[in-house]
Amino acid sequence: MSAPSPRRSPDAGRRLLRVELGDRAYDIAIGAGLLRDPETFAGLRGRTLRVITDANVAACYLDPVLDALGLTREHAFILPAGETQKTWANAEEVLDWLLASRIARDAVLIALGGGVIGDLTGFVAAIYQRGIAFVQMPTTLLSQVDSSVGGKTGVNHARGKNLIGAFHQPQAVYADTATLATLPPRELSAGLAEVIKCGMLGDAGLFARLERDIDSLRTLDAGALAEAIERCCALKARIVALDERESLAGGPRTLLNLGHTFGHAVETWTKYQTWLHGEAVGLGLAMAADLSMRLGWLKPEDNARCLRLIERAGLPTRPPEGMTPDDFRSLMMRDKKVAAGKLRLVLMRALGEAVTVADFDLAAFDATLDHFCSAAAVTP
Amino acid sequence: MSAPSPRRSPDAGRRLLRVELGDRAYDIAIGAGLLRDPETFAGLRGRTLRVITDANVAACYLDPVLDALGLTREHAFILPAGETQKTWANAEEVLDWLLASRIARDAVLIALGGGVIGDLTGFVAAIYQRGIAFVQMPTTLLSQVDSSVGGKTGVNHARGKNLIGAFHQPQAVYADTATLATLPPRELSAGLAEVIKCGMLGDAGLFARLERDIDSLRTLDAGALAEAIERCCALKARIVALDERESLAGGPRTLLNLGHTFGHAVETWTKYQTWLHGEAVGLGLAMAADLSMRLGWLKPEDNARCLRLIERAGLPTRPPEGMTPDDFRSLMMRDKKVAAGKLRLVLMRALGEAVTVADFDLAAFDATLDHFCSAAAVTP
Repeated sequence: MSAPSPRRSPDAGRRLLRVELGDRAYDIAIGAGLLRDPETFAGLRGRTLRVITDANVAACYLDPVLDALGLTREHAFILPAGETQKTWANAEEVLDWLLASRIARDAVLIALGGGVIGDLTGFVAAIYQRGIAFVQMPTTLLSQVDSSVGGKTGVNHARGKNLIGAFHQPQAVYADTATLATLPPRELSAGLAEVIKCGMLGDAGLFARLERDIDSLRTLDAGALAEAIERCCALKARIVALDERESLAGGPRTLLNLGHTFGHAVETWTKYQTWLHGEAVGLGLAMAADLSMRLGWLKPEDNARCLRLIERAGLPTRPPEGMTPDDFRSLMMRDKKVAAGKLRLVLMRALGEAVTVADFDLAAFDATLDHFCSAAAVTP
Repeated sequence: MSAPSPRRSPDAGRRLLRVELGDRAYDIAIGAGLLRDPETFAGLRGRTLRVITDANVAACYLDPVLDALGLTREHAFILPAGETQKTWANAEEVLDWLLASRIARDAVLIALGGGVIGDLTGFVAAIYQRGIAFVQMPTTLLSQVDSSVGGKTGVNHARGKNLIGAFHQPQAVYADTATLATLPPRELSAGLAEVIKCGMLGDAGLFARLERDIDSLRTLDAGALAEAIERCCALKARIVALDERESLAGGPRTLLNLGHTFGHAVETWTKYQTWLHGEAVGLGLAMAADLSMRLGWLKPEDNARCLRLIERAGLPTRPPEGMTPDDFRSLMMRDKKVAAGKLRLVLMRALGEAVTVADFDLAAFDATLDHFCSAAAVTP
């Protein structure tokens, strides 16, 4: 990776990371208690602000955040919680609410919640009056490491995930690790999938660190969390800066999709009802590592390390009951990453070194699908 | 205007204009018969293409265009014609069609039609899988001079025009003046409103030329048309290059909205049912000129020249029956250009010199509304 490394603040208490994207550059603040501190939001003073959140997050954090921002509940729109809510219909409700309140183009939308809220709010900001500013306040580990960097916004469609959306960078991200205290353990594990992914695709040192820290992360050790989040965001920021709109086919940004093409197939097959995104990614990472090993790239012992870390993070390592290799093949061919009828996959040349491959041995691909779909596959 | 002038081709037969927008730069080709010539589309060979058009345009031009592109009717989506069709529901139908055909991110959408098709197709391209390429083939004078430059895409909302949208630049524009032969005279006049607007806001020489050529333009003199289209696109391209996303409040790009805030009020009041966009802009230009005169900026004789040219173009110069000054005030305050509760208007310091004004004499504004809404106002 030859892009300039994002600047880091020397202050260990609150970490500040700059995402360098020219005139769309912004800062990610990471720290415990950020969202309750009015000083955090000094840069937003004087702006028209509207908060979009969901019912679960609202119950825990909406009022303190509104207090810190000097707002009241009438400035907030509360959506039902859950991945199934990431729909055009909900985006339209938010758009209608903004229009009914005559919110002008100089307003700032605030996404307070997990990835669903961040993606949906970012998309609304992208298309409201041809684009207004927005700020991310991610409250899940997954969104703190994943949706905070990259500018991907959007909603799901009956035919697949994130099929309608836009690239729209936030003006700032405030990742408050204290919000993880109320996160269900399954969602924490789902977030760890993205952290592990970062290690697997581009940072073998982070991967080794995670093997040491995985238990502390699951018990919410603040220092371990802040370090992991910063390291993941820094890696993502370097990659995104090289290819902001994922316009390079097989370009660096594609690498962030390690595990995702397998994972999206699972999410589509389960109709986004039962698996969390991060859980599907966890399985997808295991499948990508397995295929990388079968292709002779990833050492068998490194494949085993990947599988073990994914298991220790509390993530599933086999597909849902009843999902067949044919289901995977058919759903994966619908993926956005299909170009000219050919499936491109992100795989691993080695631990910490992902590559995009369009031309791989289909027998190995079939063997991976058979292995994971067979009853003999290891259950977590 | 200090931006570099777009490059022009020395060939007078087919005019080629470069819109300089860095890595989003593109060419506008202008000429009679472009759309029937396979050579026009050499740059699109080998790409997956889909054409979006409307029933009226399809009847006249779809088959020759498909022939020139080497496509068939199955590669085209035909929407009903009319401004009322510029809806999210129609955008969603196009999105569903693309998804059902498993169109990948490397495809190119082609907008064959007027502004409604161009704006809607551009918006679909902006949000399909987070953005794919599109090409404009404008078939109305309005879209050839207006929607071809600027990257504005979007759909209307019950609460107002273009309230949902995105900035998304086309890869190329092919403006075939031969398509104007089938344009109803009302629509030709509507297009002339945007041409006159360009003269009024930034090119007094063009304005004088239009006073000479207005009758030839209405009888579709090919040379006069090509010159007017090129001059308007060049002016717009210079302005857009200074402020691609209209992010500078009161910045240069805002000047292109001369007449539009008045005009949008008329369109909203008539529920987009009876007035064409360009007709509303024509009236809006007359109202903006009148207000500019009342503020002591535009010379009375130049205001009279504006009113006369708008009338000679066959455009309305008074509001719809029953629309009151209060209707204008209330609808104009909903405009996107309202910032911090204050209405900003584009007005004229002089003929060919527009300015954005947030602080103007409200008595003069009221006088303009009263003048145009009174029964005594001149009927075209």
